[in-house]
Amino acid sequence: MGGFTTNATIKSFGGRFLKLSHRAFQTRSNQNFTLFIPPGASVENPAPLLVYLSGLTCSPDNVTEKGFLHAHAAPLGLALLYLDTSPRGTNLPGEHDADDFGSGASFYINSTQQPWANHYRMEAYITRELPALLAEYIKELDMSRVSIAGHSMGGHGALTLYLKYPGRYKSVSAWAPIANPSICPLGQKAFEGYLGEDREVWKKHDATELVKSWKGGSLNCLIDVGTDDNFYKQGQLLPENFETAVKEADLEGLELRYQDGYDHSYFFISTFGADHVKHAAKALGLI
Amino acid sequence: MGGFTTNATIKSFGGRFLKLSHRAFQTRSNQNFTLFIPPGASVENPAPLLVYLSGLTCSPDNVTEKGFLHAHAAPLGLALLYLDTSPRGTNLPGEHDADDFGSGASFYINSTQQPWANHYRMEAYITRELPALLAEYIKELDMSRVSIAGHSMGGHGALTLYLKYPGRYKSVSAWAPIANPSICPLGQKAFEGYLGEDREVWKKHDATELVKSWKGGSLNCLIDVGTDDNFYKQGQLLPENFETAVKEADLEGLELRYQDGYDHSYFFISTFGADHVKHAAKALGLI
Repeated sequence: MGGFTTNATIKSFGGRFLKLSHRAFQTRSNQNFTLFIPPGASVENPAPLLVYLSGLTCSPDNVTEKGFLHAHAAPLGLALLYLDTSPRGTNLPGEHDADDFGSGASFYINSTQQPWANHYRMEAYITRELPALLAEYIKELDMSRVSIAGHSMGGHGALTLYLKYPGRYKSVSAWAPIANPSICPLGQKAFEGYLGEDREVWKKHDATELVKSWKGGSLNCLIDVGTDDNFYKQGQLLPENFETAVKEADLEGLELRYQDGYDHSYFFISTFGADHVKHAAKALGLI
Repeated sequence: MGGFTTNATIKSFGGRFLKLSHRAFQTRSNQNFTLFIPPGASVENPAPLLVYLSGLTCSPDNVTEKGFLHAHAAPLGLALLYLDTSPRGTNLPGEHDADDFGSGASFYINSTQQPWANHYRMEAYITRELPALLAEYIKELDMSRVSIAGHSMGGHGALTLYLKYPGRYKSVSAWAPIANPSICPLGQKAFEGYLGEDREVWKKHDATELVKSWKGGSLNCLIDVGTDDNFYKQGQLLPENFETAVKEADLEGLELRYQDGYDHSYFFISTFGADHVKHAAKALGLI
C-alpha cells in the first residue's frame, strides 16, 4: 500500500487484513496498524471506517486475531482500523517497565511532559496524521464516514476523542471503558506522568468531564461492561459516573449495558462485537 | 468439574468455556482440554458434541481464542471439545526439538515405538478414555451424539478416527487436512518415528488408504482447503488424493472445496467455521 510498508496481507471472511507500518511524524516512531478492507470495497465504492482502539499492553494483532469484529463488518461493507496502543521503538527511560504506563499504554493523548512529549502524541497521530495519510493513499476508504470504538484504555480513548472532536466521528462505542480516569488509579498514574499534576488539565482528557459540556446532540454512544470484570469491580472503569454525568447534562443517546457474568477479555469483546459493529454501521449509513 | 481440574471458566456468546485438565491413564501424562458448554445445556437437555483436533504446535488455547467456532455453536446448542495436540510434561529425549514431531505433534495415533509408545497414545485417549470420563462426569453432554473435525494434522486426526471407528462420529470435517500422510514429508517423518518403518502399518493411519475400505455409507465429510495455503502448495496436504480414492471407491458424501486466496491460518479456519459447525449440527440433529 502506497505510503505504508505492507507486512502481511491475509484473507478472511471475504475481505483482507493488511498489516501496515510507517514512520510517523507526530510520534517520531514506527507506527503499526491493521486495516480490514471488506469485500466489495473499491475506489468507486469506498468503505466507511470504524476505528478501534485497544486496551493496555495490546498490539494491533490482539484484536485482529481475537476480536472477530471483521466477521460482522465484512457483510456490511465496513472497513476496520486497528491502531497500536503507543509509539514503538523509542526506548525512553522506563518506557517498558510497567503494563499501565509507557509502551502499550499511551492513553491516546498528547503528552506535555518530558521525555514523553516528544513521542507520546497519539491523539494528534490518530485524529490528524493517520487520517490524512489514509485519505491520500488508500482510496478504498471513505474517510468522510468514520466511527470510533475501543476497549478499556481504548474505550477511554474512543470516548474522549469522540467528545473532543464533535462531528469527526459519527458514533462511538466502548467495551469496559476507563470512563472517569481522573479519579481511578490507572488514569491518575497515566495523567500525572503524561500531563503533570494540574488536575484541571486532566479534565480535558476525561470522558466524564468532557461530556458535561457536549453540544453535539444525541451522543450515539453504546457501552458494554461485564459484571465479572475485575477492573470494573476494582473501580477502574466507573461507567456509572459517566452515565450520571450524561443524565445531569440532560443528554440523550447513551446506551449503557451491564452484561451478566462477562469478564474483561476478548471473549467479552467478541461476544458483543456484532452489536458494536452494527451500532457504527447504522451511524455510517450502511444499515 | 468432577473428575477434572477446572483451570478457568470464561463466559462467551452466552455459553461458557471450561479449561480443564486431568491425569490421563492412556498417555500417562497431564492432558489439557477446553470444553464449550452452549447456553441451555443441562442434565435434562444435554448438548451433542463436536470434537475438534488442532494442528501442529497448538494447545487448546489457540482455537479457543482464534477459532470462533463457539460463536456459531452457541445458538445451535452444540458443545465443543478442543483437545491438546500431544501429551504434556513427559519430557522424553528429543520430545521438544521439532515442531513436527513429539510434543505438539502426536498425529493422534497410538505409537508402537519406544520411547513414544508409553505416552503417545492419543488415539486411545481420544476415542476411549476421555469420552468415558466426559460421559461419567459432565452430564450436560450427550456423548451418544458426537461429530469430529480438525485442522491440518488435526484434519488428518479427524478423518482417520472417523474412518477407523465407523458410527462413532456422526460426521467429519476438516480444514486443510494432511489427507495422505504416508506419502508427504510431514506424515512420513511422524509415522516412521511413532510406528516404525513398515509402510503397510502406516496405511492403517492414512485417510486416503482407510477410505478405500470404508463400509459406513455416505461419508458425510466436508473439507476446505485454501488455494494460498503453503502446506497445500508444498504437497503436504494432498486432498486431491483423498478425493480420487473416494471416487474410485464409488463413495458418496464428500464435499471438497478449494477456497480462493485463503491460507493455512486461523483466519481461514474462522472464515469457514460456520459451515463446519452447521455440517456437524445437521448430522447431530440440531438443524
